[in-house]
Amino acid sequence: MSAAPDTPFLAVDPDVLERNLTASATRAAERGLAWRPHAKTHKCVEIARRQLAHGAAGLTVATVGEAETFADAGCTDLFVAYPVWASGARAARIRALAQRTALRIGVTSVEGVRALATALDGVPAQVLVEVDSGHHRTGVAPADAGALARGAADAGLDVIGIFTFPGHSYGPGRREAVTAEESAALAEAAESLRAAGLDPVVRSGGSTPTEALSDGPGKATGSTATGPGVTAPGDIAPGDTAPGGAGPATPATPALTEIRPGVSVFHDAQQVELGVAGFGDVALTAVATVVHRDGDRIVLDAGSKTLGADQPGWISGGGRLPGHPDARIVALSEHHATAVLPAGSAVPAPGERVGVVPNHVCAAVNLADELIVVSGGEVVDLWPVAARGANT
Amino acid sequence: MSAAPDTPFLAVDPDVLERNLTASATRAAERGLAWRPHAKTHKCVEIARRQLAHGAAGLTVATVGEAETFADAGCTDLFVAYPVWASGARAARIRALAQRTALRIGVTSVEGVRALATALDGVPAQVLVEVDSGHHRTGVAPADAGALARGAADAGLDVIGIFTFPGHSYGPGRREAVTAEESAALAEAAESLRAAGLDPVVRSGGSTPTEALSDGPGKATGSTATGPGVTAPGDIAPGDTAPGGAGPATPATPALTEIRPGVSVFHDAQQVELGVAGFGDVALTAVATVVHRDGDRIVLDAGSKTLGADQPGWISGGGRLPGHPDARIVALSEHHATAVLPAGSAVPAPGERVGVVPNHVCAAVNLADELIVVSGGEVVDLWPVAARGANT
Repeated sequence: MSAAPDTPFLAVDPDVLERNLTASATRAAERGLAWRPHAKTHKCVEIARRQLAHGAAGLTVATVGEAETFADAGCTDLFVAYPVWASGARAARIRALAQRTALRIGVTSVEGVRALATALDGVPAQVLVEVDSGHHRTGVAPADAGALARGAADAGLDVIGIFTFPGHSYGPGRREAVTAEESAALAEAAESLRAAGLDPVVRSGGSTPTEALSDGPGKATGSTATGPGVTAPGDIAPGDTAPGGAGPATPATPALTEIRPGVSVFHDAQQVELGVAGFGDVALTAVATVVHRDGDRIVLDAGSKTLGADQPGWISGGGRLPGHPDARIVALSEHHATAVLPAGSAVPAPGERVGVVPNHVCAAVNLADELIVVSGGEVVDLWPVAARGANT
Repeated sequence: MSAAPDTPFLAVDPDVLERNLTASATRAAERGLAWRPHAKTHKCVEIARRQLAHGAAGLTVATVGEAETFADAGCTDLFVAYPVWASGARAARIRALAQRTALRIGVTSVEGVRALATALDGVPAQVLVEVDSGHHRTGVAPADAGALARGAADAGLDVIGIFTFPGHSYGPGRREAVTAEESAALAEAAESLRAAGLDPVVRSGGSTPTEALSDGPGKATGSTATGPGVTAPGDIAPGDTAPGGAGPATPATPALTEIRPGVSVFHDAQQVELGVAGFGDVALTAVATVVHRDGDRIVLDAGSKTLGADQPGWISGGGRLPGHPDARIVALSEHHATAVLPAGSAVPAPGERVGVVPNHVCAAVNLADELIVVSGGEVVDLWPVAARGANT
């Protein structure tokens, strides 16, 4: 299509992307879980269409603005997995969205429920109560979910279930325990809804670290948890509104009916260092130029305004260099990544291009206006980051 | 003009902005230093114009893309304070910029000099050699500046001086020592250029933490270092190409002729916690809504996709709440800031709006498409972040 652009830029490998889509779709299908990928990661209509073609039940988004972007592109089944505050201009925006899509919205407080009911003013939308499964961000305690759900139902909202984000899975060695906590919290919250006379039809969880571990109604014994697998869209389980009975070894009441992984569409350095993915699974890489070299230390022109600045305490640096897996990014400023290579390495020269895997791909994508699709060394497409900056 | 937009958004207080502009202009003028503010902080044509009206000698930028944005807006004196790699499409872009502006560019390596000379192909542009004054990012050792400058001159480039970024001033208690290191490094590098037969006319340094401390040729004894002061644009010293002799107590050969602070146009939580600014000096605030409350803990809808994720080890959290100075942001995710208030505080209720000062304002601005100018509680203007994402 055209020559590679000036650095830094974000390159997507469409073959790895396709493998990741297939892997996520397969993992969910094997368990009878609805797969509702979080579109905040890619913010990209072209990728949303591929997810839906692979059998996604719909999209998850974080903001009303993201929902508007994907609704404009024809995605009509959207879950805003966030306790949006429905006042001011946003009240009318939510109502308009509910009129043109199958809209689901999260609630976490009595006050939020009241604002949402007022905003919707009778326009139908489905509501999920957010549950805190241990991440301690938003969400109510599992035992309190029924009371909030009852309040929402009494305010005229259509409560269809519960959701949680097990974000505390982002840490070495935490995945198994957090997956169990997520299940336990959703099971307790579901029971709380039933005690309040409500049916928690949708029980939604999931994150990329726990994606391969979460149990669903149709988990097949001995199924492959992490292999890419192969599936045809027609083979995908029908979705989250018909849980249970889809496969062998069905638990009586599975804790989850739906998962919402985001990052696994691309993967990133966090997932590599958590052991969730390998460099070969990473579909998005920042392409940078070496602008300075001093012994075993190089400075690249992709800094925090390209890669993002997310750097949890457990990670080894500011991003990773797949071509130099033993290198570490020891400092990151806005337009500089300083990488140190092991003594005796072949150090890239000034002017050479180097790939960098961001720590957190959601942050990197939200800094770019477009993703450059590169296949076989050629630029084959440009995908606008349509929902970039859609924070409201 | 119009109602406040949905949260989160970035609000600029034009009165505080004006005070900050005056303070920076005054501080530079009192020392006979050229003031060349770094436009990467605001990326905003409206603010660049105000800086020039206050006597800025020109603008500093970090990328060719930023230079293009400001050149398009009529700013014709631009310093790309970065060792740009001049190849591919960027070579032609640099040449075109040099043809329509007074362009200065940084160099840090022999290879970079060669690429730049080839790219310019005889079109005049001025070059400054980057010197490492202790931040250990890009830049050559001060003693090596002369050799690189000589190589650049021999390659046909117009070497006018040296520059450094004392970024290691970002840490508690470091400002005075780092200001001294900056001066020493520039003095040594200047001597190195002279030994190579070159005149280091421009000696450019400065950062916001060191802005009030850097000595210039015309520092007046006992001048106010941090007060806002009052000055008229006509009183500003003429610029960095005529150093020396502008005021009383002129040192024989001042280390600096120019400073390039960026953040001081707005200030941010880093500057507040470093003691460089108070909350009353902060001209940009993210406006967020409380979406969740649990005891003394609140969750705001401004997360790292609004505030940025920069969080050096020495800072107290993910941003600051001027209305609740004892609160701390203990966790930040993409659309959530979790703040803990001291026990017994009046905790904002769900739905209330709260101002948040980002840790690093350059990162926050680069996430927004526009800045909302709010005066007396009313939105009075919208300023596009014209160079947002201009990373190449």
